[in-house]
Amino acid sequence: MTDTFAIIGGDLRIIKLANKLAKDKNIVYTYGLEETEELKNVPNIISCRTLEDATKEAKIIIGPIPFSKDGIYINSPFSKENILIQDLINASKQKKLIAGNIKQYEKNAIDIMEQEELTILNVIATAEGAIEVAITNTEKILHGSNVLIIGFGRIGKILSKKLEGLSCRVTCSARKKEDFAWIKSYGYECIDTNLLGENLSQFDIIINTVPHLILDKKRLEYVKKDSLLIDLASKPGGIDLENAKERGIKTVWALALPGKVAPETSAEFIKDTIYNILKINIAN
Amino acid sequence: MTDTFAIIGGDLRIIKLANKLAKDKNIVYTYGLEETEELKNVPNIISCRTLEDATKEAKIIIGPIPFSKDGIYINSPFSKENILIQDLINASKQKKLIAGNIKQYEKNAIDIMEQEELTILNVIATAEGAIEVAITNTEKILHGSNVLIIGFGRIGKILSKKLEGLSCRVTCSARKKEDFAWIKSYGYECIDTNLLGENLSQFDIIINTVPHLILDKKRLEYVKKDSLLIDLASKPGGIDLENAKERGIKTVWALALPGKVAPETSAEFIKDTIYNILKINIAN
Amino acid sequence: MTDTFAIIGGDLRIIKLANKLAKDKNIVYTYGLEETEELKNVPNIISCRTLEDATKEAKIIIGPIPFSKDGIYINSPFSKENILIQDLINASKQKKLIAGNIKQYEKNAIDIMEQEELTILNVIATAEGAIEVAITNTEKILHGSNVLIIGFGRIGKILSKKLEGLSCRVTCSARKKEDFAWIKSYGYECIDTNLLGENLSQFDIIINTVPHLILDKKRLEYVKKDSLLIDLASKPGGIDLENAKERGIKTVWALALPGKVAPETSAEFIKDTIYNILKINIAN
Amino acid sequence: MTDTFAIIGGDLRIIKLANKLAKDKNIVYTYGLEETEELKNVPNIISCRTLEDATKEAKIIIGPIPFSKDGIYINSPFSKENILIQDLINASKQKKLIAGNIKQYEKNAIDIMEQEELTILNVIATAEGAIEVAITNTEKILHGSNVLIIGFGRIGKILSKKLEGLSCRVTCSARKKEDFAWIKSYGYECIDTNLLGENLSQFDIIINTVPHLILDKKRLEYVKKDSLLIDLASKPGGIDLENAKERGIKTVWALALPGKVAPETSAEFIKDTIYNILKINIAN
Repeated sequence: MTDTFAIIGGDLRIIKLANKLAKDKNIVYTYGLEETEELKNVPNIISCRTLEDATKEAKIIIGPIPFSKDGIYINSPFSKENILIQDLINASKQKKLIAGNIKQYEKNAIDIMEQEELTILNVIATAEGAIEVAITNTEKILHGSNVLIIGFGRIGKILSKKLEGLSCRVTCSARKKEDFAWIKSYGYECIDTNLLGENLSQFDIIINTVPHLILDKKRLEYVKKDSLLIDLASKPGGIDLENAKERGIKTVWALALPGKVAPETSAEFIKDTIYNILKINIAN
Repeated sequence: MTDTFAIIGGDLRIIKLANKLAKDKNIVYTYGLEETEELKNVPNIISCRTLEDATKEAKIIIGPIPFSKDGIYINSPFSKENILIQDLINASKQKKLIAGNIKQYEKNAIDIMEQEELTILNVIATAEGAIEVAITNTEKILHGSNVLIIGFGRIGKILSKKLEGLSCRVTCSARKKEDFAWIKSYGYECIDTNLLGENLSQFDIIINTVPHLILDKKRLEYVKKDSLLIDLASKPGGIDLENAKERGIKTVWALALPGKVAPETSAEFIKDTIYNILKINIAN
Repeated sequence: MTDTFAIIGGDLRIIKLANKLAKDKNIVYTYGLEETEELKNVPNIISCRTLEDATKEAKIIIGPIPFSKDGIYINSPFSKENILIQDLINASKQKKLIAGNIKQYEKNAIDIMEQEELTILNVIATAEGAIEVAITNTEKILHGSNVLIIGFGRIGKILSKKLEGLSCRVTCSARKKEDFAWIKSYGYECIDTNLLGENLSQFDIIINTVPHLILDKKRLEYVKKDSLLIDLASKPGGIDLENAKERGIKTVWALALPGKVAPETSAEFIKDTIYNILKINIAN
Repeated sequence: MTDTFAIIGGDLRIIKLANKLAKDKNIVYTYGLEETEELKNVPNIISCRTLEDATKEAKIIIGPIPFSKDGIYINSPFSKENILIQDLINASKQKKLIAGNIKQYEKNAIDIMEQEELTILNVIATAEGAIEVAITNTEKILHGSNVLIIGFGRIGKILSKKLEGLSCRVTCSARKKEDFAWIKSYGYECIDTNLLGENLSQFDIIINTVPHLILDKKRLEYVKKDSLLIDLASKPGGIDLENAKERGIKTVWALALPGKVAPETSAEFIKDTIYNILKINIAN
């Protein structure tokens, strides 16, 4: 059950995605990716000279992830062209348009970043990336070290299991009673995020996953000078970086890890998610 | 911050709970527990001759878990008296009444079994009980065996981790795409519950956690004769026991494991949950 | 490459072994196993009326594990006959004789219990048996409990991994510096066996694997009254049972777990080991 | 029970070691480390202008790890001086001399690299380093990937556990039957190193720990083009790097990981080992 796709703009993961779709015998028209060598002379991939050529035969249009950085042009780092958001939206009328963070521009489009399954799978790569960051940025072994993970959401759940698997002593913090019970059930130590303070002094590594300020000036006072702080939360982040720096505490703000650590797997997950979206929509 | 409790009826866990509350310096009046020796001559425990005596000074009344088995009398296996549900409800007016599965009799009471945290913590004991059942009922080692857990709810999540920790090859089944992603993220093999059929033949042990019929006559055809089936789901259960028996497949319906495997821990969790309930209600 | 075996006497594992050898298309003569139904009408199994009939055609003779309990007759719980050790040894001249703990009676025989690989594999079943014993004999969950394993030999190494997999807090004791390093490397807490004393009071479960007295009267003073003691060491064992009983500390001396917990797997391991022995001897 | 040390030459770990010894209130004379700022103005550290000044008061002399790279001068990257091996040996007469790989120059010296405990502990850092290398050098997640570890010695034992903890599918290869049994007992898949060939094609990552040629030209034929090869074995290594490169298979020869990944922990382990050496020698 193959299909006809148009891939317009996008980064390294999208290039790998195009390759994967073509390998599965889908027809893939591309535009806005002319600056990469990876798609040349690949069976089933047809590079087009205009947006119209690329989209007219396709049933499904795949735009960049994220869709745009400036609100005017789509995100196309592998192209010399500036492709207007509005042009792509117009070319996608009557077709299925899939991209990342696209809802603000086109309500009928499908935002791939809102697919719960993709978000969960991306967490695996984020967790591995965080572990790499931790090994690289300490002069000590992780083995036996006291690690605090702030927040027991998706990342917290997977990262805690992996760090335990590396023989760290894992503590997780959360705010809800149910999460306290989960943390205990998985076998980790548990702290109430609201009660973080003096108890911060016992940790060698502190990893934040909560997207608002948790380690503020006051709490940073209690953090050991030779601790490593890793912030995995997107803007505005959960650590007062300024203040941590002043105190001489090493801090790494590690964002967009899946694309960096595992672009290949990332593309694979995106492909699977797209297939699932198409299956469902057929079913409905 | 101690309190005054009345404990009316209940089973072994309730007896252990009474002891724990008394040890924490709460005053505990009891009625309907006269047939146990465990509460005699314990400081802070006052055994009463009437329901009225037991309840009049108490601020919090703790009833049985579950509250009643017949809809008329409360559940009181350690008493010769038959205590009417209505009498206990009347005696609890103006007071806080906590018991298990009590809502159908008294809406204003607090059902301890509805406390998410307790349910999660009970899952630990259920998982350990399931492991004991598996070791006892097979002539093979669990190590290296193929185990299928049907359902990725609370029990599935904890049991899968523990079985992996015992070097089993763990597969989990679920119905939702998000759960598929979670199962993969935790590192287990994944099957769609709807697609269970021939693939059942690869498993040495199958553990059901879903409370409706999954392993029906048709699916049982594919199960290996020397497999072990364990049903952890409450009535009506998820395995056609009748048919499994006919086929000669060993099946264990293992219910109420926390009370059997770990009454002491169970009582501890109930105590913690009661303290949490009281704290919250004070807060509100 | 099948072979001709005679199986003389032995327990449940030997019966299962006979079945497995026959299933692999070996010819299996039996004697001293007439009281079991499991070997009747099985293809390739020939039940014989005399020791001579059973052994004369066979190339390999398999005796009981262990070989004898009284030093006069072989161990044959599934027979009404008393079979003299000397008769079996005489009948095995010029043939390969394999049995358990047989060296004291016949130096040229092969002691299957001395095969390092079998000993290691048996450890898996022992570890699972110990876990079953622990779950059954406590009123608390294992999850989160402090467990001490005395001795970091074969059992210690495997059992510690499995208990960690069940979210126990695992401490191992040993005597050699190298073992301290190994214990740390695997991620467990470490104690010097020679320094066991007051520090014993922190453990909920203590499992001994060392075959001489470790938990003597003096050390038992420090053990918590509500601890569970499990002795996995063969005679004389490592715990002063008498004294533990006096103090009211629950103690389980759990021996020969592989045969009890996993006779099927046990027979499988014995079979593999026999095949390996035969292969090597051919090679040499 | 503090002591008087002379530290002569050495790398970053030795600098950290000097700091740690001084912090424990030992007196530390140094020579051949004048180019680092880390030892300046540290209490208990006395920088000396001559080898004689540094050694005359010291009871224990600590030389570089490894002792020498050219067989003439000691290894002293943080010094402008060329210090002759023979001069250091002469200055250490009547004293305890500890260094790495020193036996060929001075038989009475203590080779710290021969201390089994240090070797085992260093394995932890090596395993973490290998994991970092694997995450950094693949475009895929480790999670769920098929990893082969060649050799089940010290590194194999610890690395396999950590990779399993990261949800890899771990296979270990070895040559001895006992090791096969151990590999199974720890729950990993097992391959005979002698039978490596076509079966190599299933692995995403292959990590060699055996210090002689295993992955030769012939075997490399079977390795997947997009596999990652990591060689942890010291010279001559176990992978035909030349041939792997020709085939376009990514290969990383990762040596001396403890010093790179965790110099702080490495120094700590060296310190503990030195203390243990001194304790024992006092005892004897």
